[in-house]
Amino acid sequence: MSDGTELEHRLDRIESRFAMHELVSDYCHGFDKRDWDRFAAIWWPDAIWDIGPPFGTFQGIEEITDVTKDILWDAWLASSHFTTNLVITFDGRDAANGLCDVDCIGTTSDKQAQTVSASYFDRFERRGGIWKIATRKVKMYHFNPLPGVTLTPPA
Amino acid sequence: MSDGTELEHRLDRIESRFAMHELVSDYCHGFDKRDWDRFAAIWWPDAIWDIGPPFGTFQGIEEITDVTKDILWDAWLASSHFTTNLVITFDGRDAANGLCDVDCIGTTSDKQAQTVSASYFDRFERRGGIWKIATRKVKMYHFNPLPGVTLTPPA
Amino acid sequence: MSDGTELEHRLDRIESRFAMHELVSDYCHGFDKRDWDRFAAIWWPDAIWDIGPPFGTFQGIEEITDVTKDILWDAWLASSHFTTNLVITFDGRDAANGLCDVDCIGTTSDKQAQTVSASYFDRFERRGGIWKIATRKVKMYHFNPLPGVTLTPPA
Repeated sequence: MSDGTELEHRLDRIESRFAMHELVSDYCHGFDKRDWDRFAAIWWPDAIWDIGPPFGTFQGIEEITDVTKDILWDAWLASSHFTTNLVITFDGRDAANGLCDVDCIGTTSDKQAQTVSASYFDRFERRGGIWKIATRKVKMYHFNPLPGVTLTPPA
Repeated sequence: MSDGTELEHRLDRIESRFAMHELVSDYCHGFDKRDWDRFAAIWWPDAIWDIGPPFGTFQGIEEITDVTKDILWDAWLASSHFTTNLVITFDGRDAANGLCDVDCIGTTSDKQAQTVSASYFDRFERRGGIWKIATRKVKMYHFNPLPGVTLTPPA
Repeated sequence: MSDGTELEHRLDRIESRFAMHELVSDYCHGFDKRDWDRFAAIWWPDAIWDIGPPFGTFQGIEEITDVTKDILWDAWLASSHFTTNLVITFDGRDAANGLCDVDCIGTTSDKQAQTVSASYFDRFERRGGIWKIATRKVKMYHFNPLPGVTLTPPA
């Protein structure tokens, strides 16, 4: 039988996994639902968001704020990100690497429906007892129009 | 070191999270695979299912039964719901609010392939030690045809 | 209050759930990213992979290796599998049944974009303390072209 300290360490790992799953989910909820507070809360102030082409790399919460509010939320009239396949590898007690995949469907500013597939390579860090994203690197596999598709809510 | 009671409380939270994830998953399995027992088991008898347009709001397991068997399972010849991004916020020990997103592809009764994106806003309650859905509110972002697509299994 | 042994058993269940979620995720990461080591590591040497039509059933890691490297990775120029709705039912301490759904989009060797929906019916077994897949049975709901769609990464 394990002693309480070891059990508590195992519990901490599990709770940390849920915290990271929530960060990955809140990225989608915050971005798609235009909930800025939710979106901003997932990043450390010095976080790096490396979106890659066609957008670039953004460093620090100010650049992340600017690209989201001034570029990305204009580039997408609407978007739905669906994150799956999250695999977490701990690197000590207070850091972990995450890999997950995202399926995205939405409408760009030219009113064209798009389908996107990408992976997120994340670095999560726990500071002062709180887990947030330190680095998110995006690798896109496709980003293409869905010809003839119009995305609208039911009347 | 925490004492056993606190560890047990933390474990209970985690097990509750898995129970809620299972409810959200069984909604999809039950609905898509036409497994009525699985679908019915996720709802409290007094559950409210607010699907919104074009379907409406249904209160209590009898109305949920009727709309599913008499309307929704006819409206969809086949459907695949993929639920992601589940975020759970506890409201005491025996209640919690859930937010998740669903990507759905399927064929409506007019033989038209459709793509749907929506969020589910859930109220989960634990009664007599069992977690079930007390309220599910659906918000749809799009529900549209996929022109020229036919959805069929491989021969 | 529970004693430590019971708490540890509950923790073991939870850690096992995460291990199985990781297997299901690594199937996608390994297959789609052509990461053979990751893909191979999810299967027991005597694993059965019953893909069904149009591919067939494969028994043992050698057959799984051959079909993946010689047939499936040629059949798909690129693929993105998104696994969701995982429900796990334990069958003793060291075995469990899993049910999950997969949404797949990719390009087949004829350069045609495809959409696939399927379920995976898994048997997970723990041997020597390690969880892997003993059996994966695939049931496909649709596997069809997306006319006019070309899947390419951004420039």
